[in-house]
Amino acid sequence: MTYRLANVTSTALLTDQYELTMISAALQAGTADRTCVFELFARRLPDGRRYGVVAGTERFLDALDEFRFGDDELAVLKEILDPDTVAWLADYRFTGDIDGYREGELYFPNSPILTVKGGFAEAVVLETVALSILNHDSAIASAAARMVSAAAGRTVIEMGTRRTHEQAAVAASRAAYLAGFTMTSNLEAHRTYGVPSGGTAAHAWTLSFATPDGSDEKAAFRAQIDRLGVGTTLLVDTYDITQGVKNAVEVAGPELGAVRIDSGDLGVIARQVREQLDSLGNPNTKIVVSGDLDEYAIASLRAEPVDSYGVGTSLVTGSGAPTAGMVYKLVEVDGIPVAKRSSHKESHGGEKRAVRAARGSGTITDEIIYWADTPRPDPDSIGLKGKVLTDLQIPLVRGGERVAGLPDLHDAREHLARGLVTLPWEGLGLSHGEPAITTRYVNEPTAR
Amino acid sequence: MTYRLANVTSTALLTDQYELTMISAALQAGTADRTCVFELFARRLPDGRRYGVVAGTERFLDALDEFRFGDDELAVLKEILDPDTVAWLADYRFTGDIDGYREGELYFPNSPILTVKGGFAEAVVLETVALSILNHDSAIASAAARMVSAAAGRTVIEMGTRRTHEQAAVAASRAAYLAGFTMTSNLEAHRTYGVPSGGTAAHAWTLSFATPDGSDEKAAFRAQIDRLGVGTTLLVDTYDITQGVKNAVEVAGPELGAVRIDSGDLGVIARQVREQLDSLGNPNTKIVVSGDLDEYAIASLRAEPVDSYGVGTSLVTGSGAPTAGMVYKLVEVDGIPVAKRSSHKESHGGEKRAVRAARGSGTITDEIIYWADTPRPDPDSIGLKGKVLTDLQIPLVRGGERVAGLPDLHDAREHLARGLVTLPWEGLGLSHGEPAITTRYVNEPTAR
Repeated sequence: MTYRLANVTSTALLTDQYELTMISAALQAGTADRTCVFELFARRLPDGRRYGVVAGTERFLDALDEFRFGDDELAVLKEILDPDTVAWLADYRFTGDIDGYREGELYFPNSPILTVKGGFAEAVVLETVALSILNHDSAIASAAARMVSAAAGRTVIEMGTRRTHEQAAVAASRAAYLAGFTMTSNLEAHRTYGVPSGGTAAHAWTLSFATPDGSDEKAAFRAQIDRLGVGTTLLVDTYDITQGVKNAVEVAGPELGAVRIDSGDLGVIARQVREQLDSLGNPNTKIVVSGDLDEYAIASLRAEPVDSYGVGTSLVTGSGAPTAGMVYKLVEVDGIPVAKRSSHKESHGGEKRAVRAARGSGTITDEIIYWADTPRPDPDSIGLKGKVLTDLQIPLVRGGERVAGLPDLHDAREHLARGLVTLPWEGLGLSHGEPAITTRYVNEPTAR
Repeated sequence: MTYRLANVTSTALLTDQYELTMISAALQAGTADRTCVFELFARRLPDGRRYGVVAGTERFLDALDEFRFGDDELAVLKEILDPDTVAWLADYRFTGDIDGYREGELYFPNSPILTVKGGFAEAVVLETVALSILNHDSAIASAAARMVSAAAGRTVIEMGTRRTHEQAAVAASRAAYLAGFTMTSNLEAHRTYGVPSGGTAAHAWTLSFATPDGSDEKAAFRAQIDRLGVGTTLLVDTYDITQGVKNAVEVAGPELGAVRIDSGDLGVIARQVREQLDSLGNPNTKIVVSGDLDEYAIASLRAEPVDSYGVGTSLVTGSGAPTAGMVYKLVEVDGIPVAKRSSHKESHGGEKRAVRAARGSGTITDEIIYWADTPRPDPDSIGLKGKVLTDLQIPLVRGGERVAGLPDLHDAREHLARGLVTLPWEGLGLSHGEPAITTRYVNEPTAR
């Protein structure tokens, strides 16, 4: 068996089988072309979170471009589906329209993050891949944004590749960069998305210089500097940290770029190392800390002399919320608003629009959701006198074609940075609580 | 931009940059070919877990086959690395040996799950991709095995694709099948790994039959049965469950295969639905439940008339432990045992072997780790009189070539099923506690 991703030339099987059995039944029933609107949204934020960050939209559009059933895919599906459905899939290409929140936009419960309009069959089949991508990438970006806020301007480096699926890691690195991380260790993310990458050495590097007579940390440091220059970062905690710092400065001199500490009580050690570096004549040598950091640990180090944080596990696992919990729901069929009425899973029928209200200062206060067949609300008429409303959805796909000039990863990163500033002050806190702003519906119709 | 995985023909950049800067420095320092042994292991199990399940070994070997730096990869690396290193990478292929636990083997803290032997440079560079794959797949398989145990013989269906990265989902489906899940919703896992797949319909299906006069659940059920036959599973909770069951039986008759319930208090509802089905003359119609199930929810439904469980979010996120936390550590250099001495991250130097001790009944009691340059311990001499020791490592790669006839996914699935039966009874419980057996070291040498 070869590594199978090498064979992936289509994203069409990244799909739950029931999407295709529904298409099959719809083709027979004559309902495959009913005009439908699906909305992708999160019913709630992860426990205690104040906001979410939309991420993955561009990756979804990339996946949509490759969402084609070629001969290889059809060969598999012939064993599951009837010939009519297989023939329909062979010709599949999405011909409808998609609108959505920008990547890097804040979202809140029920924000209509993506709206997919088209025939029932062509639109329902995108459910799985759209959710996979947005649920993953938004979970990572939402956690990452909190870490960046907690770092309060200090550098945050993504180094979580080894703690998650090898391809998820690439997307996680992208999402972290979107959310304001400075760089990544992940080379594929650097190649694919242009995320700045970096890296120097692991504990294995220092250990690899062991001799029959014992360890030789200085030889390891010297060899690293010989190749990477004194501006490199030396990992000083393989053996004894105090000795490690001493060795590092002896070998590198006053121009040593940084030391990294990957274990122990990072706050205490950072202070000791800072004093030691200063006393050895290395006031400009920076301190990088890593090792099981999350947004809370980052914040707790705010008063310590730490220059950069390396974040791994907690980033790629969404810091307790590894999925954003978004759903993809049919809300309208041939102009009729529809909604499930299962307990605890009610949704709101009908195609919706969303605007966000802000004070003159820029601070946001409300998200307003209204129905696409009703006029954009006037702030005065909904108790938001003097506030500015901003539209949240942009056209992404028209007639199956991606709209030209959509925001890219760098735009998304800037958009989020601007968006975070608009949160009410408590919304940027790490403490658990309610969403930073409330979402309100205006003029809801009755769903069937 | 196209969906970038379509362009992946190499796994070599699924790697942290520091692996390559270490190679660069080692080439210059003359240490690149020092004979090294790296071990991959977990320092501990996720909080309260009694055992872990090794998964991902075959995927790692697949990735190793494609771990080559081609022109596309080298073009990126030329901007980061010196020409000597780029030239070395152009010729890269792993030439060493790899041993490891079988896929589907149980593991415990410090079990040497994978042992990679080769030159420093050729072996260190595999760290990231080995860890990504094993950390992800083992986390999913470990959670999945608990769910299968909790289901106590009932069918468990993997339907978590939409809740995780689109490619991680494929691996998660594979890991779930390895751990005993019955089938998956994921078509790519069916294609790539031959995991049995299934699926019928979503709430959107029923909603799509809405008319201007209201919903028409019966029309939806009728259309589904027309295509998929009366043996299909009808989703009965889009509107009112009692009415949904009534409609389902009216339309499908006594041969209806199953009904699915995706919301509400599943235990109470399953009982009501069972009674209703029986009273309507459908004693053979099965009940499938889904909706935020984890191993605890599955266990809590053990006394209820549930035939199948559909599991999504908790499976693909490892049920609270989305990564296995495994590390890849240099343990030996030119025959010298080496170990980091950082606080809380001590490791044991030297290449190791592992055996598991079992009573005559088959129940396992201890895992014994000994050093590769010492003889396999005699049970009598280590207080295990009368117990049987089984070797845990098998050769996976020799001289860079994959060993022929390695266990496949189906073998791994069977191996785990046999292995779970050997756990002490408390080890199969869901309650938090210590690892089911203890790991002991015999005759440890002193590391440098």
